[in-house]
Amino acid sequence: MTRPVDTLARPGASTAFSLSQTLHRAMRSCGARTAVVDPDGALTWSALGARSSRLAGALQGLGMGRGDRVAMLANNRREYLEYYYGVPWGGGIFAPLNFRLAPAELAAILTDADARILLVDDAHLHLLADILPGTPVRHVVHLGTAPTPTGMHSYEDLLARAAPVDDAGGSGDDVVCLFYTSGSTGRPKGVMHTHTNLVSSALAFAAQIGLSEDTVAMIAAPLFHVGAAGLCIPALVALGTAVVVPRFEAGEALACIERHRVTITSGVPTMFRMMIDHPEARRRDLSSMQTVLYGAAPMPESLVIEARGIFPNVRFTPCYGMTESTASVTSLPSRYTEPEHWHLGKASSVGRPLIGVDVEVVDADDRIVPDGTIGEIVVRGPLVMKGYWNQPELTAQTLRNGWLHTGDLGYRDEAGFFHIVDRLKDMIIAGGENVYSAEVEAALYAYPGVAQCAVIGIPDPKWGEAVHAIVTASPGAVLEAEALQQHCRARIAAYKCPRTIDVRTGSLPLSGANKIDKPALRAPFWEGRASRLV
Amino acid sequence: MTRPVDTLARPGASTAFSLSQTLHRAMRSCGARTAVVDPDGALTWSALGARSSRLAGALQGLGMGRGDRVAMLANNRREYLEYYYGVPWGGGIFAPLNFRLAPAELAAILTDADARILLVDDAHLHLLADILPGTPVRHVVHLGTAPTPTGMHSYEDLLARAAPVDDAGGSGDDVVCLFYTSGSTGRPKGVMHTHTNLVSSALAFAAQIGLSEDTVAMIAAPLFHVGAAGLCIPALVALGTAVVVPRFEAGEALACIERHRVTITSGVPTMFRMMIDHPEARRRDLSSMQTVLYGAAPMPESLVIEARGIFPNVRFTPCYGMTESTASVTSLPSRYTEPEHWHLGKASSVGRPLIGVDVEVVDADDRIVPDGTIGEIVVRGPLVMKGYWNQPELTAQTLRNGWLHTGDLGYRDEAGFFHIVDRLKDMIIAGGENVYSAEVEAALYAYPGVAQCAVIGIPDPKWGEAVHAIVTASPGAVLEAEALQQHCRARIAAYKCPRTIDVRTGSLPLSGANKIDKPALRAPFWEGRASRLV
Repeated sequence: MTRPVDTLARPGASTAFSLSQTLHRAMRSCGARTAVVDPDGALTWSALGARSSRLAGALQGLGMGRGDRVAMLANNRREYLEYYYGVPWGGGIFAPLNFRLAPAELAAILTDADARILLVDDAHLHLLADILPGTPVRHVVHLGTAPTPTGMHSYEDLLARAAPVDDAGGSGDDVVCLFYTSGSTGRPKGVMHTHTNLVSSALAFAAQIGLSEDTVAMIAAPLFHVGAAGLCIPALVALGTAVVVPRFEAGEALACIERHRVTITSGVPTMFRMMIDHPEARRRDLSSMQTVLYGAAPMPESLVIEARGIFPNVRFTPCYGMTESTASVTSLPSRYTEPEHWHLGKASSVGRPLIGVDVEVVDADDRIVPDGTIGEIVVRGPLVMKGYWNQPELTAQTLRNGWLHTGDLGYRDEAGFFHIVDRLKDMIIAGGENVYSAEVEAALYAYPGVAQCAVIGIPDPKWGEAVHAIVTASPGAVLEAEALQQHCRARIAAYKCPRTIDVRTGSLPLSGANKIDKPALRAPFWEGRASRLV
Repeated sequence: MTRPVDTLARPGASTAFSLSQTLHRAMRSCGARTAVVDPDGALTWSALGARSSRLAGALQGLGMGRGDRVAMLANNRREYLEYYYGVPWGGGIFAPLNFRLAPAELAAILTDADARILLVDDAHLHLLADILPGTPVRHVVHLGTAPTPTGMHSYEDLLARAAPVDDAGGSGDDVVCLFYTSGSTGRPKGVMHTHTNLVSSALAFAAQIGLSEDTVAMIAAPLFHVGAAGLCIPALVALGTAVVVPRFEAGEALACIERHRVTITSGVPTMFRMMIDHPEARRRDLSSMQTVLYGAAPMPESLVIEARGIFPNVRFTPCYGMTESTASVTSLPSRYTEPEHWHLGKASSVGRPLIGVDVEVVDADDRIVPDGTIGEIVVRGPLVMKGYWNQPELTAQTLRNGWLHTGDLGYRDEAGFFHIVDRLKDMIIAGGENVYSAEVEAALYAYPGVAQCAVIGIPDPKWGEAVHAIVTASPGAVLEAEALQQHCRARIAAYKCPRTIDVRTGSLPLSGANKIDKPALRAPFWEGRASRLV
């Protein structure tokens, strides 16, 4: 893309943060370097910029005006980054869709977002007949190698015909994207991220984690979720390279790490368990991998030790964040997760707030509680969302008193490290006692051979809810419910111990964010009942 | 300091960046750790926060209202950080003074800033009689061990009596400080930095340089200048420690590096020359020093090699910035300044823009020039100043078309690296040819034994200006003008070579920013003439 010489005077130029500026900067600073790789090819920064500005022009040609939402239903692929950058470049708002949702849920999101344009890949074409009727979608843009169905636009044809357009100049508090989360009320919640949200969180994260132009980040989690965006965008803002994996498969991920000399990735413990147990693991050169970011679930100690045998230079960095905070709000320096520092007792914490971020623990009246006391985690800073799309009351409630109320329970220790105990809604109330399922899960994970576990509340005629655990074993391990219960009784109070344990084979179901899908596990127990849990 | 439980609802809470928030965060995250050290003691983050909030209360007690300017005339000391944080915490604007200026210049700044309160240390008390008459200063606050003169307030007494106050809640585009620069028009220019300026530049710099809680930054340059603030504030924002040196002296700096295990410092080549040549240099353990930031003048190649013999782990990182950009706008990864990478030809560049920063080279019509073409460097981003205090026309002129016009001449190479050729006003016009003094100085610095050099234009009846060099020798070296001229002729065009060379003993005069004071060197030549140079 040639840069017009009069760009200096372009409208909308401002001193506020701008995602588009980060693309400008990369194109100008290192246009010939690789920005994004996927199994089918790579894009230099020049190519990514040129294609993004053409996509912006093409979408404007389909009617995208300033602030209009554009949806995407696709596996990870390099065009996902063209979508991330191109939609805001053209003045629009990108709203990626969770492909694990049911058609009715996807239709509800398209309607909530009032999306007139939808991008879809080959893998999800077959869903459209069930999704689109009744939605505001007027244009479907098809990416992939399959023939473009009649009535749809071919992505590559559109780009080939479109002229690159100038950056629309969005910045600061202008909304860049909506990341939808499933709400406990049933209505989808579109989390609005601004330019300031994305860039300030990228800066803080890059500073904290040490991202640079030498960073090669493998994005194995789906890019419709902030878990992936929260590594991908900071890595690219720091002028690193994003290696985009269409769908996580352990063997392919290992090959990808070796081929691209991946330095950092993020994910849930389950993914690392799968890689470590894979027969290819010991045949690959995985020495480039330096940092594994994880959240959502504790990393079992045994996994940390085993991982060192496979990834000789890896260190584990727990992070904590949520869609509403754009990306991580805390992280723990990796030295605390090294076995030689386990005695410090911080390995299970999520660390301290990133630069620019306030994190506190409050009671029901929004008063800060003393260190060591469990309360709700609240967050403030430039990375906190602008609000929920078209839901001012819910926004005001969630951001009351100027703080994001996360719904997570946790405490701050005397050294300023935060510990997440549980989701408010994951708390089990058994006989009037609060049981934090995360605490029970941590006890179960300490048992040798436990690969995955989920602790949920199930209906109990006497106690309201009873503590129930679902567990899977590592390959070769044999688990017995009775032994697990004994193990728990030695570690946590009796009322917290699982009353029943279900040892399953295979893997537990995962949510869109690759967390264990607890709602799915709870559903059969609560069918036909009015449950407080969703 | 105890934090009120109702802080969540404090007025002014916002999601914008705030310098005060970075202090809040540090106090909450690591209150017991050391924030600032000087030869007389240290402050933990808790103590720095407590004293800053008391200072805020004390200054409010002296009448400081929202947006009021508070000046300080002092050597570096740990109270300088209380002043940096405390004044904005109380809603004021800090305006530190360059103690190298003449009393009349200082009076002009106090008047321009309309400063009603002045903080002064022992070393500068004697100047006040010449400075204060006619200025708006109503309260003088004295720091130090000397008796507090009648009519002044004792800093420690004020703090002891004051109650800590709540953060006034400034953020975003609110002005935090004025850093005064000497203007070419004679009128002092107060550069307004906002909360967003300070925090976004700190974030970008911390990410680029790799600052963390393990950082121990030696601040040897004076804190009235952004050269020092631009390392000190980012290091503190990253939860590192600032070691504050009252006035640079090579032997004391070496002792300080050893004692505090300093990891990073900034300065001009002259400072490192003095340290390397100091008899104590080889007796100290200087292995902690990892990074030396420098700007303003090129680092002689011989110095890089010699430095490795003294600081075994040091790497050199050139940076480029100015008061109007808050701090650095570009930096060069240190690998390019290592002798094994000199063949890449980047060691003399200032690198590429920091995250969030646009840098371009333009012609007189603000059109971007092709790579390799010399023009004026312009900068855009959240770290660009809000403007000059009370000078809207000069602000509009300097920030025209939304870009900061730096007055520096340079070019961008094909790899996106910037090279600074000279100050617009340092350019010499000899016989109609533009001679960039920096280029001539670089040639001179390549001559063995050249410790310092300055190339200036002096009056010439035939050519208007002639190229004149002033040079000092390294200890033990002997320089001859004729040999230096031969050396230059082999390297640069004849019209660029110094017509006259003055080999001096001792050190060249330094400006407030520790740059060689070219105006002082030019003055005797231009006395009584109307010079275009200031």
